Amino acid sequence: MNKRGFASDNNSGIDSLIFQAIERVNDGHVPGYGGDRYTQEAIACFRTLFGEKADVYFVFNGTGANVLAINTLTHSFHSVICPATAHIAVDECGAPEKIAGCKLIAVETTDGKLTPELVKSRLHGFGFEHHSQPKILSISQVSEMGTLYSIDEIKALSDLAHKHSMYLHMDGARIANAAVALNVPFAAFTVDAGVDVLSFGGTKNGMLMGEAVVFFDKRLSENAPYFRKQSAQLYSKMRFVAAQFLAYLSHDYWKDNALHANRMAAMLAQKVSALGITLTQKVEANAVFAVLDDKIRDRLLEKYFFYPWNEEKHEVRWMTSFDTQEEDILDFCHELEKLLNE
Amino acid sequence: MNKRGFASDNNSGIDSLIFQAIERVNDGHVPGYGGDRYTQEAIACFRTLFGEKADVYFVFNGTGANVLAINTLTHSFHSVICPATAHIAVDECGAPEKIAGCKLIAVETTDGKLTPELVKSRLHGFGFEHHSQPKILSISQVSEMGTLYSIDEIKALSDLAHKHSMYLHMDGARIANAAVALNVPFAAFTVDAGVDVLSFGGTKNGMLMGEAVVFFDKRLSENAPYFRKQSAQLYSKMRFVAAQFLAYLSHDYWKDNALHANRMAAMLAQKVSALGITLTQKVEANAVFAVLDDKIRDRLLEKYFFYPWNEEKHEVRWMTSFDTQEEDILDFCHELEKLLNE
Amino acid sequence: MNKRGFASDNNSGIDSLIFQAIERVNDGHVPGYGGDRYTQEAIACFRTLFGEKADVYFVFNGTGANVLAINTLTHSFHSVICPATAHIAVDECGAPEKIAGCKLIAVETTDGKLTPELVKSRLHGFGFEHHSQPKILSISQVSEMGTLYSIDEIKALSDLAHKHSMYLHMDGARIANAAVALNVPFAAFTVDAGVDVLSFGGTKNGMLMGEAVVFFDKRLSENAPYFRKQSAQLYSKMRFVAAQFLAYLSHDYWKDNALHANRMAAMLAQKVSALGITLTQKVEANAVFAVLDDKIRDRLLEKYFFYPWNEEKHEVRWMTSFDTQEEDILDFCHELEKLLNE
Amino acid sequence: MNKRGFASDNNSGIDSLIFQAIERVNDGHVPGYGGDRYTQEAIACFRTLFGEKADVYFVFNGTGANVLAINTLTHSFHSVICPATAHIAVDECGAPEKIAGCKLIAVETTDGKLTPELVKSRLHGFGFEHHSQPKILSISQVSEMGTLYSIDEIKALSDLAHKHSMYLHMDGARIANAAVALNVPFAAFTVDAGVDVLSFGGTKNGMLMGEAVVFFDKRLSENAPYFRKQSAQLYSKMRFVAAQFLAYLSHDYWKDNALHANRMAAMLAQKVSALGITLTQKVEANAVFAVLDDKIRDRLLEKYFFYPWNEEKHEVRWMTSFDTQEEDILDFCHELEKLLNE
Repeated sequence: MNKRGFASDNNSGIDSLIFQAIERVNDGHVPGYGGDRYTQEAIACFRTLFGEKADVYFVFNGTGANVLAINTLTHSFHSVICPATAHIAVDECGAPEKIAGCKLIAVETTDGKLTPELVKSRLHGFGFEHHSQPKILSISQVSEMGTLYSIDEIKALSDLAHKHSMYLHMDGARIANAAVALNVPFAAFTVDAGVDVLSFGGTKNGMLMGEAVVFFDKRLSENAPYFRKQSAQLYSKMRFVAAQFLAYLSHDYWKDNALHANRMAAMLAQKVSALGITLTQKVEANAVFAVLDDKIRDRLLEKYFFYPWNEEKHEVRWMTSFDTQEEDILDFCHELEKLLNE
Repeated sequence: MNKRGFASDNNSGIDSLIFQAIERVNDGHVPGYGGDRYTQEAIACFRTLFGEKADVYFVFNGTGANVLAINTLTHSFHSVICPATAHIAVDECGAPEKIAGCKLIAVETTDGKLTPELVKSRLHGFGFEHHSQPKILSISQVSEMGTLYSIDEIKALSDLAHKHSMYLHMDGARIANAAVALNVPFAAFTVDAGVDVLSFGGTKNGMLMGEAVVFFDKRLSENAPYFRKQSAQLYSKMRFVAAQFLAYLSHDYWKDNALHANRMAAMLAQKVSALGITLTQKVEANAVFAVLDDKIRDRLLEKYFFYPWNEEKHEVRWMTSFDTQEEDILDFCHELEKLLNE
Repeated sequence: MNKRGFASDNNSGIDSLIFQAIERVNDGHVPGYGGDRYTQEAIACFRTLFGEKADVYFVFNGTGANVLAINTLTHSFHSVICPATAHIAVDECGAPEKIAGCKLIAVETTDGKLTPELVKSRLHGFGFEHHSQPKILSISQVSEMGTLYSIDEIKALSDLAHKHSMYLHMDGARIANAAVALNVPFAAFTVDAGVDVLSFGGTKNGMLMGEAVVFFDKRLSENAPYFRKQSAQLYSKMRFVAAQFLAYLSHDYWKDNALHANRMAAMLAQKVSALGITLTQKVEANAVFAVLDDKIRDRLLEKYFFYPWNEEKHEVRWMTSFDTQEEDILDFCHELEKLLNE
Repeated sequence: MNKRGFASDNNSGIDSLIFQAIERVNDGHVPGYGGDRYTQEAIACFRTLFGEKADVYFVFNGTGANVLAINTLTHSFHSVICPATAHIAVDECGAPEKIAGCKLIAVETTDGKLTPELVKSRLHGFGFEHHSQPKILSISQVSEMGTLYSIDEIKALSDLAHKHSMYLHMDGARIANAAVALNVPFAAFTVDAGVDVLSFGGTKNGMLMGEAVVFFDKRLSENAPYFRKQSAQLYSKMRFVAAQFLAYLSHDYWKDNALHANRMAAMLAQKVSALGITLTQKVEANAVFAVLDDKIRDRLLEKYFFYPWNEEKHEVRWMTSFDTQEEDILDFCHELEKLLNE
């Protein structure tokens, strides 16, 4: 039996409902590559959430989703402005540069979030052929630092982007955690807040695999089918991703999982704080960032795997997941307390 | 209930054994991205088949596998020589050119197979900086025309490739069908026949998804981990691909499925020939290519979906699959016979 | 003193008028990168030739020009259809694939020229995301086989291209030789014949360096400034290319040089034919293709450098240049005659 | 007659000696693409300066040189660490990202110079497939802020690079200005200080065009010929670049020009300082950075073109050139003084 830990929400397995959904469509032959009715139903389901203009492309994983969004909205001479902590900047091995050919401009932040102030000083050189032309602001909701953009913060960024004929991309690898934290529908902080393209993730919240790139204006996505295929993200047996999304979105399933993961993070944050541990970021979704003495960290790692985040600052990251149990947190805090008291 | 047809072996679903294998590893947390023990076991399983030097990288799909193989073994100034019918040349929307940056040289063939004679006239300009430098011969086993390379034919190509410091790549999207048709172990017509890198497919033979790129010399694959990640083919919940391969390879499961699909193609070929239909290619695996009058084709398409292959030649393609049933073929031939007799 | 030969029209030097033109603008400081008045004058000069809608971008060399044209008019999922002998297909080391990311479809021809018949069978798969989407027909005028497209032949290709929402690109590395051979203005067989973008060469006809990419519709070239800079083709001291084009185009200078080169080729063709040599292509500009016994070829190469073209066919290529002298031809033929008579 | 100004050292023309050198080799036919003896002589000349192991590739311009250096030494999954002000980061419209496919990591500096301290925090993730792998440190000598690396500073960076199996690239667009400022041979602060590859510029110091990429170890440059051709940087009439470098390097010509430009900058700095202007960077070569009131700046721009550098800081840049005259500086300062006194 594999132990549950706090390393990442993608170390978890698959929700049993997802499993059943896959099984349900495993029947006979259907056209490949999204030509099947399940895929059409899943797309319709996204349109219910995001409006009729939403154009939806299923891909395999988050990097694939981000790259498809960027590739479709840019030329190689464009640049993408994002936080220095962004997944696209740090954790995709340069996939956006390679596949879209464009420049990433990584902006230092304190909390993983862009602000108009941080972005403005980067918005220059428009029309000057020597400079990569800024074309996308990319934000992660939930951010990689576990923090949340408010609807107003997103609107301010989309206004700024649109004022410069730029687009706002949202990396929603943990969008469910954001939706339940904000307690509003998905549309409220995406399409209605001016987001142009969204990487909609499910893998980190209980799905087997599969993400969706959602363009909120079909004029933007004209080339997306080709870029998806050319970047090897077109799944032949598409029905098995479609079925997962159908289950995930049609029930409150995504919501229950995300609420639970967030609650577990809040509980973890509360418990470690009570032990005197300093948190370095607000706990707004399912991530807890904390300062931990190196020796205690190393001892704790023998029991529970998690990621040292910033070695200079002695900062660690603990993620909760849809399947985290209260007992996991209690046991983890118990271990931590023991180490602290030694 | 979805009908089974003859459009493609990827229109089929998932074998129930695969399903159980996925379920079995759906337990607790394990490290992501292949750091788990199931992935290590699956790799070991490939090493049992191909030898200890085999270096194995799981990816999402066939295009992802082919592109990773090519990207890892080439620089952008190289060229890849392949049949004009090759999947990499025709069906990947230019993914190899985009991601590896290199040139594809598509060679016309009669049966989807390269020969040393066809290749030799393309092997020039070595060391001449004006020309893309030939670096890979790429063959598909089974070929896209349903034909098979003998071991000797493969050896002749690998000898030619190696003589010119080139590599031999095999696109094995239907490698199981080839293995049972040749009735030899996988290694006999791959590593032992001089193949340098193999795209090992499972999706078309009953798996949910997942392919493996197998390098037969670790010096060749040094950069593969980075190219895989950078091309968005690194799966976070890798255990669920690993588990499929473990089940697929550990039992005679891959063999049974492939044998069955091939048998169904042989039966279909025999039945349609008996109806006076002309076949255009040898039926050596699970594909049947045939000449069909356009009107009859269109009527037949109303009942069974399949692909017109070459409209000028009135050629159609019928694929069988691991789940094709004798009754499907009997019914299909019955329909065809009715149309022929009208 | 360097000998003149028949290897290539780029083995020649610079016309003295070009030299003087460069010297004339070598005065004080002017804005770099084309912000100077000489560049504006040179662009105006092109507009006189091609119409006010012409948008002109100077680059360093022919490969740079072709790649800028293709990059600007395509996305990476597009394909470019060209003769198998095209410079872009054979002599640019895969630059179009690398920089534009798209696929080249090389069509076998007998004379280096595309025809609607040859192209039509490649025009399929439109809208099918699995296939690279045909977007450009690319022709060379003069072709790499020394042959010429008539105005009607070009119109037939542009009609075909436009019918499929494609563009017609002309590689005009030897466009001056074509213009004098057709004896019509440049516009007659380019913009007026439906060409969408032109690589306008001067280097092979007496210039030091510098080519121009001419777009015949400004809506097509919106991104060209950025793609030029990003592909390292934006010259800082642009005035020195502009000055060359000003001199080259403002006088009959380009015409005199091209007429002369063509006449020299005609003379060479006539003389070698008289010696019993078989020509393999029509001599329509400044190239002569001929069959030559290998031994005689090797002996002749000791005196005059030229390129064996197709070793299997014992075919050689002889190019004349703006500075070829009658005495060069007489001496060359004298040598050839001696070898033939031995 | 064009006025001389302080906008950039590439707004100047061509030295007359360069002109004569081009004219001298304009004689008859020679093999193209560097197969001529002038090119071999020019390469030999570089070897005299840098040692026999130097491998030299002439290209058209500085961006072409930098991109060739980076492309040759990296795979697409690598990253290049450079100052945020680096030409490759800011002024090449994303050429390195597009052509090499790799990530640029732009480090904020105060003076345009990397230090081991600034770099170290970026040197992590080696062997971790999720991160672009640091492979090149890139420095500009003279830096884009007009500052100079000492030999020891360069050695410290090359030691750091080599310790991590990385390379040190030097963008030497103004390398002559650096050499005379340091008053040592070129080799002393390049190959002897551990630089692995050098972009050696001449255009900004009196040449017509042409730069050289110098690899200091032939094992590194094996693929450079192909990458040069594929990036459209292989000049057909190479002798005309070679001849420039022959003249430029064989006499003290490069030295005289650079010394003069540097002296002019020193004079300019001294004069404007005397007028009470604050300099923002040390004046170590031929650039002067200063704070200037916006209104005065705009008035001064009516007479002399130069670049506002950092609008927030009211910073401007004045460049001197090989052809700057004392009278230019006196007149410029006179204008400035008038404006300051108004």
